[in-house]
Amino acid sequence: MSHTNDTLRKSVSLDPFPGSKKQYITGQLHKINVPIRTIELYGSYTLGSTKIDALPVYDTSGPYTDPNADIDIYKGLPKIRQSWIEARNDSIVLDDFSSDYVKSISAGRNNHTLSFSNPPKPRKAKAGSTITQMAYAKRGIITPEMEFVAIRENQGLEKLIELAQTHKGHVFSSGFPTKPITPEFVRDEIAAGRAIIPANINHPESEPMIIGRNFLVKINANIGSSAVLSSIEEEVEKAVWSCRWGADTIMDLSTGDSIHQTREWIIRNSPVPVGTVPIYQALEKVEGQAEALTWELYRDTLIEQAEQGVDYFTIHAGVLLRYIPLTAGRTTGIVSRGGSILAKWCLAHHEENFLYTHFDEICEILASYDVGVSLGDGLRPGSIADANDQAQFSELETLGELTKKAWQRDVQVMIEGPGHIPMQLIKENVDKELEDCFEAPFYTLGPLTTDIAPGYDHITSAIGAAQIGWYGCAMLCYVTPKEHLGLPDKNDVREGVIAYKIAAHAADLAKGQPGAQIRDNLLSQARFNFNWQDQFNLSLDPDKAKEFRASNTAISTNGQVEHFCSMCGPKFCSMNITQDVRNMAEKEKKASAVERGLKQKANEFKESGGKLYINKD
Amino acid sequence: MSHTNDTLRKSVSLDPFPGSKKQYITGQLHKINVPIRTIELYGSYTLGSTKIDALPVYDTSGPYTDPNADIDIYKGLPKIRQSWIEARNDSIVLDDFSSDYVKSISAGRNNHTLSFSNPPKPRKAKAGSTITQMAYAKRGIITPEMEFVAIRENQGLEKLIELAQTHKGHVFSSGFPTKPITPEFVRDEIAAGRAIIPANINHPESEPMIIGRNFLVKINANIGSSAVLSSIEEEVEKAVWSCRWGADTIMDLSTGDSIHQTREWIIRNSPVPVGTVPIYQALEKVEGQAEALTWELYRDTLIEQAEQGVDYFTIHAGVLLRYIPLTAGRTTGIVSRGGSILAKWCLAHHEENFLYTHFDEICEILASYDVGVSLGDGLRPGSIADANDQAQFSELETLGELTKKAWQRDVQVMIEGPGHIPMQLIKENVDKELEDCFEAPFYTLGPLTTDIAPGYDHITSAIGAAQIGWYGCAMLCYVTPKEHLGLPDKNDVREGVIAYKIAAHAADLAKGQPGAQIRDNLLSQARFNFNWQDQFNLSLDPDKAKEFRASNTAISTNGQVEHFCSMCGPKFCSMNITQDVRNMAEKEKKASAVERGLKQKANEFKESGGKLYINKD
Repeated sequence: MSHTNDTLRKSVSLDPFPGSKKQYITGQLHKINVPIRTIELYGSYTLGSTKIDALPVYDTSGPYTDPNADIDIYKGLPKIRQSWIEARNDSIVLDDFSSDYVKSISAGRNNHTLSFSNPPKPRKAKAGSTITQMAYAKRGIITPEMEFVAIRENQGLEKLIELAQTHKGHVFSSGFPTKPITPEFVRDEIAAGRAIIPANINHPESEPMIIGRNFLVKINANIGSSAVLSSIEEEVEKAVWSCRWGADTIMDLSTGDSIHQTREWIIRNSPVPVGTVPIYQALEKVEGQAEALTWELYRDTLIEQAEQGVDYFTIHAGVLLRYIPLTAGRTTGIVSRGGSILAKWCLAHHEENFLYTHFDEICEILASYDVGVSLGDGLRPGSIADANDQAQFSELETLGELTKKAWQRDVQVMIEGPGHIPMQLIKENVDKELEDCFEAPFYTLGPLTTDIAPGYDHITSAIGAAQIGWYGCAMLCYVTPKEHLGLPDKNDVREGVIAYKIAAHAADLAKGQPGAQIRDNLLSQARFNFNWQDQFNLSLDPDKAKEFRASNTAISTNGQVEHFCSMCGPKFCSMNITQDVRNMAEKEKKASAVERGLKQKANEFKESGGKLYINKD
Repeated sequence: MSHTNDTLRKSVSLDPFPGSKKQYITGQLHKINVPIRTIELYGSYTLGSTKIDALPVYDTSGPYTDPNADIDIYKGLPKIRQSWIEARNDSIVLDDFSSDYVKSISAGRNNHTLSFSNPPKPRKAKAGSTITQMAYAKRGIITPEMEFVAIRENQGLEKLIELAQTHKGHVFSSGFPTKPITPEFVRDEIAAGRAIIPANINHPESEPMIIGRNFLVKINANIGSSAVLSSIEEEVEKAVWSCRWGADTIMDLSTGDSIHQTREWIIRNSPVPVGTVPIYQALEKVEGQAEALTWELYRDTLIEQAEQGVDYFTIHAGVLLRYIPLTAGRTTGIVSRGGSILAKWCLAHHEENFLYTHFDEICEILASYDVGVSLGDGLRPGSIADANDQAQFSELETLGELTKKAWQRDVQVMIEGPGHIPMQLIKENVDKELEDCFEAPFYTLGPLTTDIAPGYDHITSAIGAAQIGWYGCAMLCYVTPKEHLGLPDKNDVREGVIAYKIAAHAADLAKGQPGAQIRDNLLSQARFNFNWQDQFNLSLDPDKAKEFRASNTAISTNGQVEHFCSMCGPKFCSMNITQDVRNMAEKEKKASAVERGLKQKANEFKESGGKLYINKD
């Protein structure tokens, strides 16, 4: 066991990003510290006429990249939200876990070789209290979580944005709110259901973040062990690793043994909200026999996971009995795991989906812990051929009906979307979702824009993800190169996260997100000035950029930083030549200014009648 | 030298694709053999009710993947167009090369250690003959090249498309011509300037292909040695390798020594059209001093390259003196190599760009060999900040003016486009190009949709490329992961080509290209039926898909082909469960058919007055 512990301690990625400092912005309304990563610039940069020597960027990496943080994965991360939750005085700590499952494993729990020691006691709403962020928002309250995300969304860029507004460029092109995000705006968006802050009171370690189309586009990384591969060590590091590269939330999709234990490790050590699909674990409990699932067992699993701290649940409550035959003629039937489990249950019992019939009770449970619901698209298309069909859109309408029910109990809602969609059919998905689900945030997997590139589905789907983000999708669920082929390893996770950071950022740019373009502009200035160090540090993956550059410069020369890149060689470098052009143009301009000056004098002379005045002094 | 030869022979990739047969479709009008790759299917597939046991796909790999072909890179590829060109009887073989440069190196030429032995004598139009594909098209002639591309565009899918039309799905959604491409249609598109067939009479080795927005979206791969790195061996293999993965044309962007010799090897061994940027070599000849360039030197370089067989030239004739100051305030000035060279020349001499002032003479030269002109966007934006600015769009208007001039001399034209463009500004580029340049085919680099991901620019740009292809761009110039950082190696070329095949195919799907979706549907059927072999063989990169799958199955089990993928494990496999759902639904349907039958009988009985008829026989 101590061997396992050592492995765990060593296996977590802790290095800060190159050239970056971890900083915290404090709140005005609440005692909060919002993390930000500040990239220091070595070269000389200006926005308009203002010199810029550092760029703050949104930071999902958590305390791991803070050299001052005391990281101990056996204790878990510091519980930054604990005092906020306690101060609200509307929840209580239970003496014991409520779920039968936890009670049943509880005796042997801490002896399980994989158990997290001393998991925190569960917390639950007091009877009669509604404790969700939506409930607070509707009551007009600005919680610390809301102020936190407002500050976080602005990324410390307020001054730079103000500067940028007076500067040229396409920074604010598409009607996005150009003012800094305020806590009031956050509150109003949450109250309207247009955004959510997934924030289970049992996951006080998480740094609040917001999902909604009037905010930065977010990305989710799926991790999780499967029956076939993987270990707890790998999964915890995958969580830390995902956040390091930019995942805004993670979903633990573990199957197989030790799901409960794996999840405990992940939640206690995750600085971002954690989502799950509870039906996966429920199915494990009945040894994979979908027809053996019961509402009671599922309910117990919800409570089990809610008390561990899962921040949002994917629930496939829209897979209705009458929709199932609509999938029979499809090229790829039902490809959602959750969807197919429920479809099998419905058909076996010839009864309506128990998640649908018990949805009110589900919402009651979720509201007690502030777990968000991500209404799953169990009938999403699994191929281009099945995109935007009747099965898919029928389910979407039902998700809209369920959205209203959840909102009545102040449960925060997002809506899951496809899948495999050719480009010309992507926008219809967003438009229909916004209409049918009353603007609840949309959360899509990809979509993949073609089926013919297994091994490269991070790319087939980044193409679709960028577009759907631009059209209004709030969060993009990543796809790794291993999609359809195998379980992603660490490198696949990095490739997937970066591909999706690209898609999300391209969408932010296209939406005219204030501040989105500032990083592009600085990196481009760095590139243009051959400031390689800054170009690396400003990039999404400095390690990769540096590695690629190094593989070329190694061969080329004398150890000095070169003022050309190896693509063109020194003589041809267009950026070098442009600098000359710029210098020449500057000279021209001065020259013609002199010329203009002379001409003006000549004109004045002409206009004055051409007489020569002689100074008589 | 024999060592070099051995290395070369071994260094070329010759293996056929797995599960694929090289086949040839013969012409109706001409004696032509159009290559096609046929993927054999092991599983059982249907379109509607027709069984499909093989899928023909477009094949750019040339004779290299034909086991019956006699490959000898010292002799070059077979000259398949030779007899077609001779039969036209409108060109002559010259006794010697016309350019002063070739004459000057000619004595020592075959002794150059890197020289290709016995390069073919150059061919040129007879005085008074116009020999371009556009000239023939305008005269109503269908050349073998035109019939070749018509057959090639249909990919041998005519029967499957006909079937697909009666089948469900979004195959023909966006107004794309749904009839098979005819030679007449090809001729008309060429005559109108809406498409080009780059086909220098001195590159008879090339298999004709067409670039135009009413055809399949094409991709180009840039290769070429630079002053810093690379060798001829690598470059020839990069050409073969690019075509293998799907490049429709290649551009040789070599700089440094031995440009002429490298190009000879590439052209003699390239089954796809080869493009160049002649100003690069011209600049080498004046040792990198842009201001020392002259029209005479450039003209000589054009002739040198035209007589070698280059199929299209990028010519930056739109970089006008008056546009240069428009770039001075940009974030990244002028980033096109060609553009910056010419800008420097213009400023140094304070004269108009000599490519613009001599454009008529350029066209005269191009017409004599049927070299296409790709009007370069020397002022393309090099960053998001500079997208769609006045410099860029001013140049585009000038390219339109030059298009008309070229067409007057029957020179085939395409228009180059950017660069770095955020998503919301991409469509404007296509719309303006079509309008300003009278629907000449658009050929764009990317565009990159954000600047912040060096190391991943194949992805930042595949996002833009897919969109611009959908909007009507005819050819996409690839970007590799090394863009901005270094020279691509073989693996980077593969990554870049595949990313762009994905973008082009996603665009074909979105445009409703007939037949584009058939491959997706078959691959998805294979996936759904756990037919791994077919899934691999139908994919863009079977090697990668197989490798990724193997890395997981190795650990998992008993050597048999598994009916699940390692993501979910056997119990959770949604595709497995769906099969059950499908079986159940089928049973349901039958059951309810029986039920309906009984009900109908009951109704009939009721309607008949409820009397029991007794058979009296």
